[in-house]
Amino acid sequence: MPSSEFDLIYRYFSSLGAGPAVDLSVGDDCAILRLESNERLATSVDTMVEGVHFPENIFPEDTGFRAVSVAASDLAAMGARPIGMTVALTLPEADEFWINTFSQGIAQAVSAYDLPLVGGDTTRGPLTITVQVMGALPMDKAMLREGAQVGDIVYVSGTLGDAAGALAFLNGEWQPEPDAAEYLLDRFHRPRAQIELGSELLGNATSAIDISDGLLADAGHIASASGVCIELESAALPLSAALESNGNSDTVLKWAISGGDDYELCFTLPKGVSVPEGCTRIGQVVAGEGVKLDQNVDFETGYQHF
Amino acid sequence: MPSSEFDLIYRYFSSLGAGPAVDLSVGDDCAILRLESNERLATSVDTMVEGVHFPENIFPEDTGFRAVSVAASDLAAMGARPIGMTVALTLPEADEFWINTFSQGIAQAVSAYDLPLVGGDTTRGPLTITVQVMGALPMDKAMLREGAQVGDIVYVSGTLGDAAGALAFLNGEWQPEPDAAEYLLDRFHRPRAQIELGSELLGNATSAIDISDGLLADAGHIASASGVCIELESAALPLSAALESNGNSDTVLKWAISGGDDYELCFTLPKGVSVPEGCTRIGQVVAGEGVKLDQNVDFETGYQHF
Repeated sequence: MPSSEFDLIYRYFSSLGAGPAVDLSVGDDCAILRLESNERLATSVDTMVEGVHFPENIFPEDTGFRAVSVAASDLAAMGARPIGMTVALTLPEADEFWINTFSQGIAQAVSAYDLPLVGGDTTRGPLTITVQVMGALPMDKAMLREGAQVGDIVYVSGTLGDAAGALAFLNGEWQPEPDAAEYLLDRFHRPRAQIELGSELLGNATSAIDISDGLLADAGHIASASGVCIELESAALPLSAALESNGNSDTVLKWAISGGDDYELCFTLPKGVSVPEGCTRIGQVVAGEGVKLDQNVDFETGYQHF
Repeated sequence: MPSSEFDLIYRYFSSLGAGPAVDLSVGDDCAILRLESNERLATSVDTMVEGVHFPENIFPEDTGFRAVSVAASDLAAMGARPIGMTVALTLPEADEFWINTFSQGIAQAVSAYDLPLVGGDTTRGPLTITVQVMGALPMDKAMLREGAQVGDIVYVSGTLGDAAGALAFLNGEWQPEPDAAEYLLDRFHRPRAQIELGSELLGNATSAIDISDGLLADAGHIASASGVCIELESAALPLSAALESNGNSDTVLKWAISGGDDYELCFTLPKGVSVPEGCTRIGQVVAGEGVKLDQNVDFETGYQHF
């Protein structure tokens, strides 16, 4: 890419790189980050491809915010404290309006998650955004998928299925009222990584995962990694009024259990442990394998069964 | 991407994730890496797009090895000890032959650089490879671009221009003898990140950079970051016999000073400091700015002036 384009991009992004753990930010061969002496590094990478992971006509500000949120959600699921990220951006052309608005979405996420942008790469090609997040974990703690125990209670944060309801609306499958439509689109375009909840759960939850593939699929990852069965109750699933306004309870249930992209946390707590605000009990951990909904259906993974 | 494709990719990559600093590898929401208590994290990300950063008909094994080498070269330029990497792979289709041979190239690089593959993401789309490398640096040391001092001597490792000579051959611009062609193609397809040299220079070199954009451009980054002028002598530039076999000394000089992709290290040492094996003195640091070749030409950046 010509250096004038690098200059343009550098201008928009270079102010986002400062943070308490950042010794050296964008501009040299590597960025340098500092962990406390009793901490470890948690890291995860997510790629979003235009036309595959987000529609082509999405507002670039939302694309930027969402790309960071999706990656940061993996830090939340481990209970890690954000310390920095890199963004590798492949762009078909250096469109100043696009770069400007995209960078505003990145900046909002940097601020929302205290996640400074410490490095990146910009290349020419079909629009692809790869975000790698880095966080700090205490030396002796991490929330993994593998710790769920028989007898634990299963919880989920927030409400389920909103992003799937928004996608169905965007695809012309239903027409919510304006207020509901606005709420659902915000949930799809602006998912919030549950960083604070993850931090609160660290040391208490026996397992956790963020819901990116859908509740059944992701609860299935916990079941499989922990060697247990997860029983879920459909009547207990937290639903937004906007989603329920659809009126068709089968459709709404399908969105809630198999729709991805909500980026809420699903986690297990031992009985008697106090439950963080905004979280709902949706089931329990029993002996066996896989995920059961209402005790009569076996789901290996969510999506393929609908 | 359907889960059967994930299974395929997981099978090829899952054995590459173990290392002394790896507490948790591929398979959960994040990977977990451990630094020593007196160390900091150095990290860098590089994206390669098919048709832009490598030809479409390149052997997938070379693509994999080269993608890691290009990223690892940034660790070498900082003097960092490799601890792990992630590979975000966007693929047009799950071609088992491609994935198999690509993963062999990745595996060779994992082994060459002691750089375990601890995480990744696989998405559907035009072929794009993003490698993020992570390394450890002592708390009180790093080789930056900004430390060159007037009076320092400028060195480069290996030989220069070989990758540019190989590209010219691939583009049909000249026809080296078979042995020379083989040597040059290996230099282009299989660049070696100078990890050991970087480690040896850490604490001795006043500045360093890896040569990815060409000697003049990259020496220019040192000059600019350090606020000095770098004087280079064309007669001193180390050239391989294979490159010199081209016979046209102007062409060879152009490749050596402005060809990118050699991934050798350019660095500055104070006078009197012993020079690592395989490195050549190519110039000196003087007061001023920019890069001068043979004291009579001013170069802001290399590439645009040819």
